[in-house]
Amino acid sequence: MLFGSIEARDDEVTCAVGDGQTNIKDKVEIPLTTSGETIKSIVNYFKNFKDLKAIGVSSFGPIELRTYSPKYGYITDTSRTGWANFNLLGTLQNYLHVPMSFTTDVNSAAYGEYIDSILQDKPILSLAYITFGKGVGAGIINDGEFIGYNGSPEIGHIIPKRHPNDLTFKGICPYQGDCLEGLVSEPAILARTGKSYKEISMFDPIWDIIAYYIAQSTIQATLITRPKKIILGGKIINEVELDKVRQQFKLLFNDYIDVGDLTEYIQMPSHSSRKLAIIGNLSLAKKKFYSEEVPSK
Amino acid sequence: MLFGSIEARDDEVTCAVGDGQTNIKDKVEIPLTTSGETIKSIVNYFKNFKDLKAIGVSSFGPIELRTYSPKYGYITDTSRTGWANFNLLGTLQNYLHVPMSFTTDVNSAAYGEYIDSILQDKPILSLAYITFGKGVGAGIINDGEFIGYNGSPEIGHIIPKRHPNDLTFKGICPYQGDCLEGLVSEPAILARTGKSYKEISMFDPIWDIIAYYIAQSTIQATLITRPKKIILGGKIINEVELDKVRQQFKLLFNDYIDVGDLTEYIQMPSHSSRKLAIIGNLSLAKKKFYSEEVPSK
Repeated sequence: MLFGSIEARDDEVTCAVGDGQTNIKDKVEIPLTTSGETIKSIVNYFKNFKDLKAIGVSSFGPIELRTYSPKYGYITDTSRTGWANFNLLGTLQNYLHVPMSFTTDVNSAAYGEYIDSILQDKPILSLAYITFGKGVGAGIINDGEFIGYNGSPEIGHIIPKRHPNDLTFKGICPYQGDCLEGLVSEPAILARTGKSYKEISMFDPIWDIIAYYIAQSTIQATLITRPKKIILGGKIINEVELDKVRQQFKLLFNDYIDVGDLTEYIQMPSHSSRKLAIIGNLSLAKKKFYSEEVPSK
Repeated sequence: MLFGSIEARDDEVTCAVGDGQTNIKDKVEIPLTTSGETIKSIVNYFKNFKDLKAIGVSSFGPIELRTYSPKYGYITDTSRTGWANFNLLGTLQNYLHVPMSFTTDVNSAAYGEYIDSILQDKPILSLAYITFGKGVGAGIINDGEFIGYNGSPEIGHIIPKRHPNDLTFKGICPYQGDCLEGLVSEPAILARTGKSYKEISMFDPIWDIIAYYIAQSTIQATLITRPKKIILGGKIINEVELDKVRQQFKLLFNDYIDVGDLTEYIQMPSHSSRKLAIIGNLSLAKKKFYSEEVPSK
């Protein structure tokens, strides 16, 4: 039995197929050009596999996740030409005629972590996966189910307490100014320092400020969703920064709840986000297939 | 078919029975004295009902909710004499021999709101219920299921951005100082003003400061769990304060996500928390019964 994964990022689409045990059997990268051209390549790829039972689709956002919305399955207002207000899920279903799940890129990676933990026999049934890069994204799983009835978590827009050495920076969020994303995203670091995050030494005190804010997001996620693990991904996270985040978590949280060893509790992803997204999508496809499968007589 | 509800608060225990449609058929209040005496009264009450299928139990905290813990069902470290480290669920089950659900007082009220919305034909499948009184409590429901694998939400301990006119108050939380509960609970208001919250005019600017912090908790809950509605309860919430919270939500959130009309989105409970807890417990009992019921041949 074969399942498919389609992971649309804003530059490339990864298509893959795997078996019911989430082993990846094949994989291709398709450039994201016009929607017509890209969809055609995706459809052609999957036509190679006759026994395909279902496909898990994940996409860059913003996307419409509310199943009760007439725009469920759409990419809504992206700046990518030809992709705004595009019925991604409906178009794929028109051509491929198999059940499809639909979620965000971060949700699929979070689900991949969840599935991988089960496959490794170290089950993490509830987890928060937060990514820090150009923006801040999150996927949260509560006892095997996604959190977010009206869409996926938008933890990037929580309001942090400001670091005492960072009070003059106004933040760059067009809506809120100094929300989390307005303070810690790649463009926020550029706006504050005039430099790309890559060019800044790990000894620079900016990283303590960034860790202070990221730690607050891990605290809010801990208190509101009580997960077993928090996973931090994205380009501005590395082992040094992760450790700074753990230290700030310890200082700000002061052991209010026992979350266990912080080096276990707050971690980086177990695989690349791309691989996790495939694992997640394959499993979501399988779940979708079995939820729609009616036992025959 | 009859179901039961046991709601233990720190001064009284409400016992009730209801039918499968969550109609409350009978109700008594039992004083919380010693555990032996109180349990005896509870057991005697339920022995009147021969057809009882299951009981929903909710309790003041802290309680152990993790089903994998050896202390699942315990009240852990309360200051009420004779109730600390007490196996509430196990003791009740020893005497009453029916399936029992177990959750926090706020979770049961949140579940009551969820069930009530369905009975009213205006289903709210995902909601956050936050109470502000001596402490801050929360119950969050995501698509009909509680959020919180490792315990119920502890939104009282999120770290708010400080109000510019409230920078000198250190907060009263013994762990964190100026977490939400350390800033807005009844004792925090007393520590700040020297007066009980009841004695403070609604024109006093303290209520704007309190609303600023409460609004942040509604924003964090909105972003992290994406509910359809937020319900604010507890003694320090009233219509005037609720309106201040909505105004602060609007200013701080700046329509980042469309949550609809704020007078619909942020509301007070639809019934007293006590009634909601009974409705919630009766439904949780029913759910427990059907999850354990194996169809006979």
